[in-house]
Amino acid sequence: MFPDRLIRKSDSKILLCVLDGLGDLPGLDRSDTPLDAAHTPHLDALAAAGTSGLFTPVAAGVTPGSGPGHLALFGYDPAPYQVGRGVLSALGVDFDLQPGDVAARLNFCTLDAEGRITDRRAGRIATEVNRARLARLRTEVTAPDGVQLFWETESEHRGLLVLRGADLYDDLEDTDPQITGVPPLAAEASTPRAHRTATLVGEIISSAMQVLSDTPPANGLLLRGFASLPDWPDVESRYGLRALAVTKYPMYRGVAKLVGMATAAPYETIEEAPARLRTGWSDFDFFFLHFKDPDKAGEDGDFERKQAAIETFDRSVPDLLALGPDVMVITGDHSTPVVLAGHSWHPVPVLLHAPATARPDMVETFGERVAIGGGLGQRPMCELMAQMLAHAGRLEKFGA
Amino acid sequence: MFPDRLIRKSDSKILLCVLDGLGDLPGLDRSDTPLDAAHTPHLDALAAAGTSGLFTPVAAGVTPGSGPGHLALFGYDPAPYQVGRGVLSALGVDFDLQPGDVAARLNFCTLDAEGRITDRRAGRIATEVNRARLARLRTEVTAPDGVQLFWETESEHRGLLVLRGADLYDDLEDTDPQITGVPPLAAEASTPRAHRTATLVGEIISSAMQVLSDTPPANGLLLRGFASLPDWPDVESRYGLRALAVTKYPMYRGVAKLVGMATAAPYETIEEAPARLRTGWSDFDFFFLHFKDPDKAGEDGDFERKQAAIETFDRSVPDLLALGPDVMVITGDHSTPVVLAGHSWHPVPVLLHAPATARPDMVETFGERVAIGGGLGQRPMCELMAQMLAHAGRLEKFGA
Repeated sequence: MFPDRLIRKSDSKILLCVLDGLGDLPGLDRSDTPLDAAHTPHLDALAAAGTSGLFTPVAAGVTPGSGPGHLALFGYDPAPYQVGRGVLSALGVDFDLQPGDVAARLNFCTLDAEGRITDRRAGRIATEVNRARLARLRTEVTAPDGVQLFWETESEHRGLLVLRGADLYDDLEDTDPQITGVPPLAAEASTPRAHRTATLVGEIISSAMQVLSDTPPANGLLLRGFASLPDWPDVESRYGLRALAVTKYPMYRGVAKLVGMATAAPYETIEEAPARLRTGWSDFDFFFLHFKDPDKAGEDGDFERKQAAIETFDRSVPDLLALGPDVMVITGDHSTPVVLAGHSWHPVPVLLHAPATARPDMVETFGERVAIGGGLGQRPMCELMAQMLAHAGRLEKFGA
Repeated sequence: MFPDRLIRKSDSKILLCVLDGLGDLPGLDRSDTPLDAAHTPHLDALAAAGTSGLFTPVAAGVTPGSGPGHLALFGYDPAPYQVGRGVLSALGVDFDLQPGDVAARLNFCTLDAEGRITDRRAGRIATEVNRARLARLRTEVTAPDGVQLFWETESEHRGLLVLRGADLYDDLEDTDPQITGVPPLAAEASTPRAHRTATLVGEIISSAMQVLSDTPPANGLLLRGFASLPDWPDVESRYGLRALAVTKYPMYRGVAKLVGMATAAPYETIEEAPARLRTGWSDFDFFFLHFKDPDKAGEDGDFERKQAAIETFDRSVPDLLALGPDVMVITGDHSTPVVLAGHSWHPVPVLLHAPATARPDMVETFGERVAIGGGLGQRPMCELMAQMLAHAGRLEKFGA
């Protein structure tokens, strides 16, 4: 019901800056986080003038993947709005998935002489080996009548299979048994309407297995997470927002496309992002800027590099402000603590800058610890969209 | 379930003081809000001794009207407890709406020679013109058999039409098309049971249009928000509270009546309010005192007048404390920031004084910014009732 039922027209502009994996913990033998340690005069000034909060991407204790983390930022509660793994794989390789396509995550595996799985990751073959294998499958596996097949490399043993054609359904069980010592499972339909799709997938797998049989360690394949594009209301129908995503990496363009955002040409360095935004400034209302570097440094356990990435972003702030957003938010999609070298459940600091409408709080800098006492409170991340819309004058009064 | 299932009897007294539109933003070229700027020694002393919080009336980013704002204060979640516009119009003019009455908000409009709407507000005619037109309708429109009609002036082009009789239903579509250049819509039933009501409304409108036809610019009328009194559980059945509303304006008595409160004679100035409360002190358990002036000053964008209104209220605090409430709460129904000159979504500071049971926090004054760190937290406003009941010793233990 809220905020979708209260949308009103406005010319205001909202800029959402996502520093991927922003939240962190104190580094080893230190009491500050990379965000605390970073010299961020511009972000601190925004924090002092605006309002802050500490937001939980999915739920208490839940570590989000990139999909759920971003859906929450866009106001889509990640619990009901779940994306299948096959779709996420397609988004990650910039595959132009169409409505009705059925996508599955593909893993090369190693089979023994009796067809039992001995390694579910085929010894983590090199990405180049993956490419060579899929090139063979592309030419040697005959697609079923009326069906187009797409074999795409992700990295190492990971790939993507997409079936395109009429009357295909994604209600299929994984062929990956998740254990070794047994053969791959048959492709089974979980609903009657998917029986034909299951039969077709079975034929494709068996044809592919024949092609691969002479090339261990990648002599088998496992499919999981069969999924079609979800049929969700987009941000224009929900919020009246024409939205543009400015990203470097395909995964984030992909999640943005799932909720109906347009996408700008990928940027190479964050310094190019303000120009990308400016190009679309008059045609769009909402801008999603994605910056991956803090997450990568966090995943690598590199405190200094994460700190430096945040400082790099801080230097872009004046150029972003120069665009004149009515509301500018800086936050993350989840935490990626350096000491954990991976995503975590810790809530994420949010900084909301809106010169005309933000109520200042006592927070004077941008950081995890100080955000606890911010005026936006400690809230679920999927409430952030309502805050952005309200501060941009895009919500009607409720009741008289 | 909570708190309704845990109610126990008590002789304790709860006084809820609502400073309408209390919450605010810093004024232009200043860093303090009217509440910060106001000299409020009595409220500050209560804040220092009691416990504070920052409460959200409806939901993140949602700007409440007066109806939802007050329902939340009374512990009625405004999302499920929605009041029709016709009922709110009736409350606003102190019309004594009865169960089964069907009320609609009436707008005079201007029609051209072909019956198309050229102005949905009839040039905002003077209230006196409105009275004269409705006086003619009162005498010249014949009520359908078995139906009583009430035509009431609100202000300018706004009025109220009430139908009273057996078997009338409010499941009717608006006749206001919300745009100009088209004729008013027919009164259509949205459920089968309302067909007869729709026919009667159609006859009334067509008779009224004939009467009005020679008097542009108010030569047409539009009806919207058909509504009957909702059938809600009252505060006595939910909380065991006999409640008295002490207000100056009819709208707030009206909302209080919706949840079963008794109403005292309107006061003229806030200085009279303690005496009004004293008159009912032994007969009631819960007292809702409404003070409109901060909201009016906020709507007018007048910082100094809002500050002065808050100071006026502060001077009444000793007389209110002298009544001896076990729990006294001071808060607002929503924010009305001076710089926005209208209601807003910003959360509202809450101050709870309960000498025997409130746990003091670090908050030493009454203000938006300091309330962020208060002991009641940042919570939905409809939880406030449970806090008042608990601090008044009116809730049983849950479980053994």
